[in-house]
Amino acid sequence: MIEQEVKKIAQLAKQASLAAMNLEQEDRKRIILGMADALADSRGNVLAQNQKDLDLATELNSAMRDRLALNEARFTSMVQGLRDLVKLDDKIGQKLESWVRPNGLKISKVRVPIGVIGIVYESRPNVTADAAGLCIRTSNAVILRGGKESINSNRAIVEAVRKGGLAAGMPEGMLGFIDFVEREGVKALVEQEGLVDMIIPRGGESLIRAVTDMSKVPVLKHYKGVCHVYVDKAAKLDLAEKIIINAKCQRPGVCNAMETLLVHKDLAQSFLPHMLNKLKELGVEIRGDKSTQALVSFAKPATEEDWETEYLELILAIKVVDSLEQAIEHINKYGSMHTDAIISEDKAALNLFQRAVDTGVVMLNASTRFNDGGEFGFGAEIGISTDKLHARGPVGLEGLTTYKYVVTGHGQVRE
Amino acid sequence: MIEQEVKKIAQLAKQASLAAMNLEQEDRKRIILGMADALADSRGNVLAQNQKDLDLATELNSAMRDRLALNEARFTSMVQGLRDLVKLDDKIGQKLESWVRPNGLKISKVRVPIGVIGIVYESRPNVTADAAGLCIRTSNAVILRGGKESINSNRAIVEAVRKGGLAAGMPEGMLGFIDFVEREGVKALVEQEGLVDMIIPRGGESLIRAVTDMSKVPVLKHYKGVCHVYVDKAAKLDLAEKIIINAKCQRPGVCNAMETLLVHKDLAQSFLPHMLNKLKELGVEIRGDKSTQALVSFAKPATEEDWETEYLELILAIKVVDSLEQAIEHINKYGSMHTDAIISEDKAALNLFQRAVDTGVVMLNASTRFNDGGEFGFGAEIGISTDKLHARGPVGLEGLTTYKYVVTGHGQVRE
Repeated sequence: MIEQEVKKIAQLAKQASLAAMNLEQEDRKRIILGMADALADSRGNVLAQNQKDLDLATELNSAMRDRLALNEARFTSMVQGLRDLVKLDDKIGQKLESWVRPNGLKISKVRVPIGVIGIVYESRPNVTADAAGLCIRTSNAVILRGGKESINSNRAIVEAVRKGGLAAGMPEGMLGFIDFVEREGVKALVEQEGLVDMIIPRGGESLIRAVTDMSKVPVLKHYKGVCHVYVDKAAKLDLAEKIIINAKCQRPGVCNAMETLLVHKDLAQSFLPHMLNKLKELGVEIRGDKSTQALVSFAKPATEEDWETEYLELILAIKVVDSLEQAIEHINKYGSMHTDAIISEDKAALNLFQRAVDTGVVMLNASTRFNDGGEFGFGAEIGISTDKLHARGPVGLEGLTTYKYVVTGHGQVRE
Repeated sequence: MIEQEVKKIAQLAKQASLAAMNLEQEDRKRIILGMADALADSRGNVLAQNQKDLDLATELNSAMRDRLALNEARFTSMVQGLRDLVKLDDKIGQKLESWVRPNGLKISKVRVPIGVIGIVYESRPNVTADAAGLCIRTSNAVILRGGKESINSNRAIVEAVRKGGLAAGMPEGMLGFIDFVEREGVKALVEQEGLVDMIIPRGGESLIRAVTDMSKVPVLKHYKGVCHVYVDKAAKLDLAEKIIINAKCQRPGVCNAMETLLVHKDLAQSFLPHMLNKLKELGVEIRGDKSTQALVSFAKPATEEDWETEYLELILAIKVVDSLEQAIEHINKYGSMHTDAIISEDKAALNLFQRAVDTGVVMLNASTRFNDGGEFGFGAEIGISTDKLHARGPVGLEGLTTYKYVVTGHGQVRE
């Protein structure tokens, strides 16, 4: 029953995505504004439904409750997020490349929507409006499947933005919503090969692994951010200190925060004790390798597990390395292809690091915290990818597009 | 046992792919030339091993035997294929985009290798050298797994090109070869998530579906080519005739040959009887809808199955459509997102068709047969993709690359 209902939603979305190929940029902007206006009008209902979710969510811890809660400010920012999308250029129809062959055929590579995008997410109800807006802005149909804890909020948000979108000319079925809290709802969605073109899961690593394992459709994902900062022997130490503190402490609960610090052995004595004391003062728990433990008394031993852990809190793993090459090797072994930084004034070291570290975003003398769609200037972000294909690093509107080739001739045939 | 052996091959390939990040373009060219020279030197052994495969392959039909057979000309062209790769620019390290943020951070999007690519293929032993060359040219490690019918040929080719590559500086493990003919060899390969980054299956639809269903790694694929030509009411008829004959008859056994002809109803009387008689003379079996059957006596009835069949032989399905929109609808329903053509002098019709048909390559007044890496000017081709993500249409060297972001700062931290 669930499977059939989800298939129906996917079929309608596929139909809508084909109809959406004929939308002009102005049409898409009008639809997004229609969604924003209708959402703004539904403020009372959405906040009431959110309260209902909060009342029912007696088993959630306070962090989860916070993610679930929509207050006036968050609601306003959700509406504003949609309005801001209209300021961006979605680039659909853009010629990416174009050339003429000796036989006169003109070949163009043209940016087009992907088709139907499925979004599977957890508690935060604002993802409902954000993700729908991003997909529809780029002329994709979208199918949303949120967590059961936010089902009343999501339902109210979808009802509002769908109504506003349809009134502004959105094709029927373009904003699909899976109103089943059962796990079969997700399974049915990710099995719609041929109808759904891409799945984006947003949430914790276990959700993302479960979705990826089940999916028959390509998944654009982000498992975790085990981000490194390597302090090279040719580092400016004041600069290193500033970046380390920012990367670890400015917002430790996010994926682009540093989790492991690698320091060249030539700096271990001169730099590490001072740096680690500073971090300790800032409340950071220190887990180090043997060399680090020998330098400061408060370092707990780091285990093999520490090197691959995304703490998302004020804990830092530290390793003293013999060389730049050993740092690179460590990152390629334990990293998550998210964000990895080097602090150095040595051009050769910077060059080797940026080439040899296999990661989505390499930071040279900058904080890992800059791996972010906003900080990259994308204006909006659907997430950060640690995959290697389709889209890597922060994913803006471009990541919700693909291309087709258009070949223009005047009767050419192949010899 | 097979699983462990394949894992070991994948681990070595991963190591090699990391080492390969430090190769310069000149290094890669030298390796490819080393492979070509060593392959040329092994001519006697490779042809003898191929004869062994042919002697053992008593159960293959003549088309399969032909695919398996390496003669002097095919061998020479395999060696030349490697040498030709050196003439192409692989673009690794190329800056795709670059911009500066208000805080002074310089962001570059840089083309890099994908990492480790697995190739699963059937009978043709020349794929062994071709695919290895394309992957290594773009600084990827490659793991080959050919069909059991060509195992002796493949083993001899791998031995030669590996020896030549290693002598020219190729990192150890960069050219992996799965020397197990058992199906578990494929399964073990496509399950190496974290070690293998992309799988490219080459062969019939059933092989590709089997690989895709098993794979835990992204698959770049091409299920089939159900290619359409739509003759619009504003078509030049001589041009339509020329293109239809070329698309169906020039080489009917390939994926970019036309399988279904759609004709606007206004042309049915004036154009179709003449066209279908011509095709019949050329040996094409005609399967038509009711309108087509009413026009010529020799048209067999087309069933629902015909609309989604890739014949790969001299059979053509024909449907008379009421409008351009109906043609688009038919293609989006039954097509395989491979190649679809329109013949028309009407700009509005061409525009609508190119936007609304959801396919990899749209041909405007040109034969479907031009969907090909060589015809696009790519110089070399790993295959044609009917996927929507990563690479669409003919896939040249660029399709074997991805990108990373390199962010250069001077101590910036996030506020």
